Amino acid sequence: MTYCVGLLLKAGLVMLSDTRTNAGIDNISSYKKMYTFDAPGDRAIVILTAGSLSVTQTTLARLQEAIDDPDATEATSIMRAHTMLQVADIVGKHLADVASDITEKLVRNTQAMASASMILGGQRKGGAMRLFLIYPEGNYIEATQDTPYLQIGEHKYGKPILDRVITPDTSLADARKAALLSMDSTLRSNLSVGMPLDLAVIREGENALHEVRRIEPGDPTFLEMSNAWSAALRDGFSQITI
Amino acid sequence: MTYCVGLLLKAGLVMLSDTRTNAGIDNISSYKKMYTFDAPGDRAIVILTAGSLSVTQTTLARLQEAIDDPDATEATSIMRAHTMLQVADIVGKHLADVASDITEKLVRNTQAMASASMILGGQRKGGAMRLFLIYPEGNYIEATQDTPYLQIGEHKYGKPILDRVITPDTSLADARKAALLSMDSTLRSNLSVGMPLDLAVIREGENALHEVRRIEPGDPTFLEMSNAWSAALRDGFSQITI
Repeated sequence: MTYCVGLLLKAGLVMLSDTRTNAGIDNISSYKKMYTFDAPGDRAIVILTAGSLSVTQTTLARLQEAIDDPDATEATSIMRAHTMLQVADIVGKHLADVASDITEKLVRNTQAMASASMILGGQRKGGAMRLFLIYPEGNYIEATQDTPYLQIGEHKYGKPILDRVITPDTSLADARKAALLSMDSTLRSNLSVGMPLDLAVIREGENALHEVRRIEPGDPTFLEMSNAWSAALRDGFSQITI
Repeated sequence: MTYCVGLLLKAGLVMLSDTRTNAGIDNISSYKKMYTFDAPGDRAIVILTAGSLSVTQTTLARLQEAIDDPDATEATSIMRAHTMLQVADIVGKHLADVASDITEKLVRNTQAMASASMILGGQRKGGAMRLFLIYPEGNYIEATQDTPYLQIGEHKYGKPILDRVITPDTSLADARKAALLSMDSTLRSNLSVGMPLDLAVIREGENALHEVRRIEPGDPTFLEMSNAWSAALRDGFSQITI
């Protein structure tokens, strides 16, 4: 499984993913699920992926191929698209095409299906920050003021903390912290989600990646935060009388 | 959906269930999912149910019919069974039989299946407290020192708090609080789980129901606990620096 979350604040975007991939419970590996693209001053784009690894890797490879193509146009390259909505269309189209191609191969021999979903966040110069959840079929929904975060994968364990803390006015520092704590709860309760983590932060109006960071297992800052949160929960718990 | 949780501590058993039932998102009702049986001094039994309402109600009706039968034996009545393991066998057998009967009716017209699962907790005089999760097929697993709680239904939202707090040595008061907070997180994040709640507590060795309580929507104690927990989480959150 996977856990990926994207938060859309007035102050910017926070995107976080784990890296655990498994084909069966006894075949576990670590694969990057976050892909970043930026042309500082013009645009910054982050894609988080969940689902069949062959679908997500091939989709990202095709997106990169389209970027590198000297004949790329606004309709084919996410680095040339005029708006984030166009970016979402391009990503959605590739995702659905790849899933359909791979499923076609699979059904020859088995009844298996291959699919994936993605979270896409970013900003293009002159446009608003946007955060999309792209479904396996290529259609998408968008984060709004009412629902300022989107999750894919194993989303339930980490939802309560987000529901309590995140509003569009939450600061980037708090949103970053909430995303990490949401991941921490998921890591504790589900073995199919695992370290290291990939974190990206985009500040409103910068049109650049403000922070892109890999958090390794045993990262002292993450460990300290995780322990502080455990202690805070235990303290809070012990102070409640019922 | 449903959320039910049972905790097995050295000090006793805590069992908690919600009451929301839905047949489609637009047909929501409130049904008891907790059933208690006791003969004080001899035995106390609590059953929590999740799944198809027709399966759970019919299973409980058959269990009650067997109890009321003047020819009841240790093999048919959960109030005469010698051990909690026998109780689990009787419940499991009825559950599997009912699910199979109802599925047989359903498949005549549709491909639908009906099934349910249950948590069974209790103690019989001279025996140990036992806590079982009974699967739709009638087989079961049992809570142990390593895994002192069992959940059915919408279990993910409420798992992190249990993972952090519950060990076999947790006091009954703390276990009761943790179960309620686990339910509180689930209520906040999932509309298919709803108030009122049913809570039951059995103390080790009493062989009687120590507490059986319905917690209504707007219950001031539950509301206060819920608010205190929110405040504790927010305070804890704001004190963490990363």
